[in-house]
Amino acid sequence: MNKGRQTRHEIVNGALSLAGKVGLEHVTLGVLATDLQLSKSGLYAHFKSKEALQLAVLDEAVGRFTAEVVRPAITAARGEPRFIALFERQLEWINGSAIAGDDDSALSAGRCIFMALSQEYDDRPGEVRDAVARSQRDWRGALQRAASIALSEGHFRPDLDVEQVAFEFVGIAMAFQQSSNLLADPAAERRARAAFDALLARCRHG
Amino acid sequence: MNKGRQTRHEIVNGALSLAGKVGLEHVTLGVLATDLQLSKSGLYAHFKSKEALQLAVLDEAVGRFTAEVVRPAITAARGEPRFIALFERQLEWINGSAIAGDDDSALSAGRCIFMALSQEYDDRPGEVRDAVARSQRDWRGALQRAASIALSEGHFRPDLDVEQVAFEFVGIAMAFQQSSNLLADPAAERRARAAFDALLARCRHG
Repeated sequence: MNKGRQTRHEIVNGALSLAGKVGLEHVTLGVLATDLQLSKSGLYAHFKSKEALQLAVLDEAVGRFTAEVVRPAITAARGEPRFIALFERQLEWINGSAIAGDDDSALSAGRCIFMALSQEYDDRPGEVRDAVARSQRDWRGALQRAASIALSEGHFRPDLDVEQVAFEFVGIAMAFQQSSNLLADPAAERRARAAFDALLARCRHG
Repeated sequence: MNKGRQTRHEIVNGALSLAGKVGLEHVTLGVLATDLQLSKSGLYAHFKSKEALQLAVLDEAVGRFTAEVVRPAITAARGEPRFIALFERQLEWINGSAIAGDDDSALSAGRCIFMALSQEYDDRPGEVRDAVARSQRDWRGALQRAASIALSEGHFRPDLDVEQVAFEFVGIAMAFQQSSNLLADPAAERRARAAFDALLARCRHG
């Protein structure tokens, strides 16, 4: 990686870390320059606007999510095992243990940036909001495909509504995040698993 | 209401409206003064700190939620009808149609301030975070009590885990909010109802 790309990478990582603490909406070039002890003009050489930076941060988060959740789950056997692996990886992601590498951010402390972003931008039009929505649609799409494969493998019932399954999967993950982080409920993981087991049972038998 | 209380009320309403747009964390006395076209010293006469203002805003939101969701649901018959009424009111709240009165804020545009706050403060220690967590615990408690009554009325099965039910209820509401607002999915309400019907079926029969 050349020097310019390396610096850009460091800025994006720093911004992702900061976004986990103050929210992506409030990661401005000024705040970030202070946080990274860089000059504001140095930042401007890499990102022309706050939106360009935010989109790069979101892109990095999507890349990590793909690497830590989606790709490992796809190594599980087609069908129900893969669907279950997506759930396990999602729990780990929310718990923060799925985050490896060069980042000591609030992500590692367990905050799921996509859920935070999903709240932060859910009624604020713009390019960042569109990108956040796209990332969430893509994730639901991945869940739907996994459920469809489980259906075609005969693990799930043939009349299963896979979009409904993705909706409920997402809800369980969100309730888990709130229980685990905000409410610090020691039963959070047990409850998430019980909810997912009930969803699985309905996927199998209806 | 005397003049001082009236002004305080207007400030809190203005702040709640602003919180719906920029996030409660970023409702500072300076930003709010500009937004309400008041002097900063005028605001300081009513709120000594940003935290005091944020707590008052949260308190106002809890009051509205109680008035628009909890209290009307309690007029429904004890047991399952009341549990269902809580769900119906929660959907309306998220849709924004349950908000009446003197506020043209982003709340009316459908943003659920509690879910936004739940994300915003889930890993930031402090008095505001504690109050947000308490509001969410109280809401889960209300759901648990409604489920317990349905159990004692014989509507729900006797071995029902009512905390699990509250966890899953919250997850459905969160997935609904994301589907409805961020993703603008026209099927959002139908999916939320299908998920809730499946939860109800399990409450009855296990």
